[in-house]
Amino acid sequence: MIAFLNADCTLRQKADIVTLIEREGLRVHVDRIEGTEIIGVVGKDPGRLAAVIAAMPGVREVRRMSLPYALVSLDYHPERTVVKVGRARFGGGKPVVIAGPCAVESEAQIQRTARIVAERGALMLRGGAFKPRTSPYSFQGLGAEGLRLLADAGKATGLPVVTEVVDSDDVGLVAEHADMLQVGARNMQNFSLLRAVGRQARPVLLKRGMMATIEEFLLAAEYVLEGGNPLVVLCERGIRTFERATRNTLDIAAIPYLKERTHLPVIADPSHACGVRSLVIPLARAAIAAGADGLIVEVHPRPEEALSDGPQALRPDDFARMMAEIGLGGPRPEA
Amino acid sequence: MIAFLNADCTLRQKADIVTLIEREGLRVHVDRIEGTEIIGVVGKDPGRLAAVIAAMPGVREVRRMSLPYALVSLDYHPERTVVKVGRARFGGGKPVVIAGPCAVESEAQIQRTARIVAERGALMLRGGAFKPRTSPYSFQGLGAEGLRLLADAGKATGLPVVTEVVDSDDVGLVAEHADMLQVGARNMQNFSLLRAVGRQARPVLLKRGMMATIEEFLLAAEYVLEGGNPLVVLCERGIRTFERATRNTLDIAAIPYLKERTHLPVIADPSHACGVRSLVIPLARAAIAAGADGLIVEVHPRPEEALSDGPQALRPDDFARMMAEIGLGGPRPEA
Amino acid sequence: MIAFLNADCTLRQKADIVTLIEREGLRVHVDRIEGTEIIGVVGKDPGRLAAVIAAMPGVREVRRMSLPYALVSLDYHPERTVVKVGRARFGGGKPVVIAGPCAVESEAQIQRTARIVAERGALMLRGGAFKPRTSPYSFQGLGAEGLRLLADAGKATGLPVVTEVVDSDDVGLVAEHADMLQVGARNMQNFSLLRAVGRQARPVLLKRGMMATIEEFLLAAEYVLEGGNPLVVLCERGIRTFERATRNTLDIAAIPYLKERTHLPVIADPSHACGVRSLVIPLARAAIAAGADGLIVEVHPRPEEALSDGPQALRPDDFARMMAEIGLGGPRPEA
Amino acid sequence: MIAFLNADCTLRQKADIVTLIEREGLRVHVDRIEGTEIIGVVGKDPGRLAAVIAAMPGVREVRRMSLPYALVSLDYHPERTVVKVGRARFGGGKPVVIAGPCAVESEAQIQRTARIVAERGALMLRGGAFKPRTSPYSFQGLGAEGLRLLADAGKATGLPVVTEVVDSDDVGLVAEHADMLQVGARNMQNFSLLRAVGRQARPVLLKRGMMATIEEFLLAAEYVLEGGNPLVVLCERGIRTFERATRNTLDIAAIPYLKERTHLPVIADPSHACGVRSLVIPLARAAIAAGADGLIVEVHPRPEEALSDGPQALRPDDFARMMAEIGLGGPRPEA
Repeated sequence: MIAFLNADCTLRQKADIVTLIEREGLRVHVDRIEGTEIIGVVGKDPGRLAAVIAAMPGVREVRRMSLPYALVSLDYHPERTVVKVGRARFGGGKPVVIAGPCAVESEAQIQRTARIVAERGALMLRGGAFKPRTSPYSFQGLGAEGLRLLADAGKATGLPVVTEVVDSDDVGLVAEHADMLQVGARNMQNFSLLRAVGRQARPVLLKRGMMATIEEFLLAAEYVLEGGNPLVVLCERGIRTFERATRNTLDIAAIPYLKERTHLPVIADPSHACGVRSLVIPLARAAIAAGADGLIVEVHPRPEEALSDGPQALRPDDFARMMAEIGLGGPRPEA
Repeated sequence: MIAFLNADCTLRQKADIVTLIEREGLRVHVDRIEGTEIIGVVGKDPGRLAAVIAAMPGVREVRRMSLPYALVSLDYHPERTVVKVGRARFGGGKPVVIAGPCAVESEAQIQRTARIVAERGALMLRGGAFKPRTSPYSFQGLGAEGLRLLADAGKATGLPVVTEVVDSDDVGLVAEHADMLQVGARNMQNFSLLRAVGRQARPVLLKRGMMATIEEFLLAAEYVLEGGNPLVVLCERGIRTFERATRNTLDIAAIPYLKERTHLPVIADPSHACGVRSLVIPLARAAIAAGADGLIVEVHPRPEEALSDGPQALRPDDFARMMAEIGLGGPRPEA
Repeated sequence: MIAFLNADCTLRQKADIVTLIEREGLRVHVDRIEGTEIIGVVGKDPGRLAAVIAAMPGVREVRRMSLPYALVSLDYHPERTVVKVGRARFGGGKPVVIAGPCAVESEAQIQRTARIVAERGALMLRGGAFKPRTSPYSFQGLGAEGLRLLADAGKATGLPVVTEVVDSDDVGLVAEHADMLQVGARNMQNFSLLRAVGRQARPVLLKRGMMATIEEFLLAAEYVLEGGNPLVVLCERGIRTFERATRNTLDIAAIPYLKERTHLPVIADPSHACGVRSLVIPLARAAIAAGADGLIVEVHPRPEEALSDGPQALRPDDFARMMAEIGLGGPRPEA
Repeated sequence: MIAFLNADCTLRQKADIVTLIEREGLRVHVDRIEGTEIIGVVGKDPGRLAAVIAAMPGVREVRRMSLPYALVSLDYHPERTVVKVGRARFGGGKPVVIAGPCAVESEAQIQRTARIVAERGALMLRGGAFKPRTSPYSFQGLGAEGLRLLADAGKATGLPVVTEVVDSDDVGLVAEHADMLQVGARNMQNFSLLRAVGRQARPVLLKRGMMATIEEFLLAAEYVLEGGNPLVVLCERGIRTFERATRNTLDIAAIPYLKERTHLPVIADPSHACGVRSLVIPLARAAIAAGADGLIVEVHPRPEEALSDGPQALRPDDFARMMAEIGLGGPRPEA
């Protein structure tokens, strides 16, 4: 629920409205929407309150919002957010492609991959340093050393870098080296981590949990915004269903559905969605056609040697073809 | 498993091969692939058989196929099938759009809708006469009268028509009036019905069950081909998942995945996949981008008055916009 | 919505009520609940109608029922239905166990299995004659011959028999030989078949579709009752989920949930739910503990030789152990 | 894969075996099984290695284990683990019931609930102090103050307490106050947290993620054991499926399935599984019947006033009835 105030609403009138709302156990966000001062009621919208507030002095109109996610809502914040990371502008009209290996494996590998993707039009470099792995015996990433190698490869190619942070204690360290922090699917409801990335200034790439509803996804983003960080890019990466022909099921409808409900940019991860190289390019085309603001894909110079997720990584030529097929072929001109 | 025969393989040699296979409880399909005679082994591929057959006189090569669906398989039949219905050519390169109301409701409604979709580029008309409904108290369709009205509207506009058949007893009646028979999602594993449409000559539009794996979907098509009818178009229409923001989850990856495995054309139904008008167009774009050979969408002159599925039906203007956005705008030239 | 009538409500008053309801496009069921005459409104309950009817002469009270399944509803019909098949009484307090092979394979096999299960306390014999199989190349059952063999084995042991019917055309034939007709999971929304079993007099064992919500399951039963046959036993047999460690996921909560909503008996099929012999007994115990009115389990004298579903069939000793563990051990005394 | 060593295997021979294994990129666990020294190979079991090792001096036998979870495996560790917390002995034969409110709300509430559940036979007290909530605007628990109140209530009633830890930084604090640490469903793949609870000495109650396969669940437990803490109790609490009649779907088969594969105790949480009070008792009976080593249930003196999850909390009388129905009625005698 949002109360739109009259231009001459007094401070006393505002205080009365706020008091009334808080007495109901609800929270208040005072903000402006297109020049009009508003009081947003955050929390479960109680039916009777709207009429009471609408009748109070100083209130022009009350608009019902049943959404529990006020800060990320397009209703509440009708201007779309553009998240800038270096030359990349998520939500700025032209799709942004993030590319790189699943995991940083060595200096040679990340440097080489960075050059490959930069030359073919990627605007950001990805690479895992801290890897959340289902088994404790799988390769867990190079950790702090991986972070440094990734940052160096980014500098060498002029690409900003994004990497996953898996523990709230590591947020500071990762933010020193990375231009954007990724919260992975398995941590989408790690609320401590969401709060930690909300308290720092780097943009956040938030991946949808593999069994999270769209509403839960928006509420996870709400945690970050509520913590003070408005720079969130949402990423649909496939949900878990009964179908096992593909690793996950890309919920393609989530892209336009999210764009109807939130002002945040939305990208897709076709690599994790399907887990099979040959399907990545058709899914990339589909995601862009459905309205995605960008893509994050895995590229590896030699996928057969990758320490994790080799079968889904694009080869350099595949990546060039993907870029061409989504209309972003060739190196980007300088901005 | 397929045995490729030498050009000079004798009849006696062939008989020996067939005898050996059948003694294992397996079935045989004799066919030609690009001019070479082959013997396909249908059923579970037993490991030891391949080597034995490969060593037999008359056999040039044995290729292992672990697929349980031999007839629909692209391995077995590497030329892609084009299904022709009137001017529509599914799998012929250019996407085919089927459009019309969920249900035939009246002569005026179906005639008007037929004109609307024909003028805007649809190549086929859809409309339900026998409706499978979850509740016995929902509108069940006009039955035989609906069939007649649909066929008349098709003739008036030059569009071939497709409609659902829900009972094997009705196959003859529906085939009299319709140019293509639809087997709906709820009947994808109604094996009596699959066999019945396999025994007649009309092309079949087979929809994926909402909880069917891709393999089960291919096996359902295998029933139709095994019955003698090779003219099957597959339709991805969304699967049931935990996500309820949309009615179903369009399994967009199923489109390229199916195209890698079967020679049959594959289309998508964005209307049933999402159940919400505003998402139909982005999903239509995505399906075409993913490689679909066509679309089937619901169009209603006045969706708010529709007797079933109103919220997902496109208005005439929406349909024109969809056609433009997938590059098929404007009326089609005569073939 | 149900209108409870006064004892002195006149025929004219009743007609007025019915007319009013039908003018709204709704259907009417006239019935008695605990001695009081009622008029049930079947279909979507329109908000305004309740107040209008409540004010009409002859009406004592209107009770809102938002359920779309009126006939199967416990609200509408508060006395629980007991379905009797021979000595078996589903819903009669003591659990009823149906046992037998997945498919009738030969006279020796079904006769032997019938004796085994009868001696160990089963009250009904199961066995498939028409098998719905995912692949057209799998064993499809012995058909009419299987029906006869099953009926003979039932007679020889005094056990009534249940078998699946997969086509509405076969309902008459199956009803000649079987004491109870099974509608399988894949046909739960084959509405022609539901109507066909609703028009005949044999009790029906309706299995939940692997993709069906509980509400859809109740609506499928509603089709049968609406057709005129009140003798339906519901069977929870596992739903399809992301978990593939077991063949399906037994929705154990569905048992008490259904018993809260419907007057029909509810049994469970632990064999199909898990697909693994070693889990059948614990699931059988759980289903009975959750309130099931019975079980249907697969038993085979030599599971390793079964033509279908061998891995989930109990051996004779397993079956005896299961009966003991659910408190039904030893042969039943004559009724 | 496990290599069983001869009694006279020399240190040199052991070193050779270990070197060989590690050269393959695999890890080694040296342990004893029933008095025999073994070398367990942890990680993906490469086919050719078994034969090589079997032929080495000092090796008596090599047993193939395809399981990726060695430490939790019943194959690897055939004696079942009993986890003791105060008088509670999980896996000790008699089911252990943990009960208490979803969240600690006040001193009066937790003290009163503790008395209620202790008098009715619970052996442990539960209560959330740090609550992971989907929305940032929901009640998040009393934090450290809640921990203290919970510990006090435990001491007053002689019940050991379990509470959730949601951040690896809080593990020390929670371990000071609680006798057992819970890792919740949303954090089942928070690997930092799993490692943190693995490095301390308190027993761990690990809940299955709502999206986790049984294999992923076992691998999560493997993280804790690999960290050094062998005292893990697994808890099945329902998975997310298409069915929304209940909050989650209790995967009842997971209980016997887990007991076949791991030596760790397994309990069930019927409250979160269904989310509806009336179904908790039937599910509790079912879980015990399926072989669960215990239950964790929510009890609240006045559920209608609960700050979270009120609709699923048992009232005191319900709890007494549940205990009676699972054969644990009345207060427990002192140990």
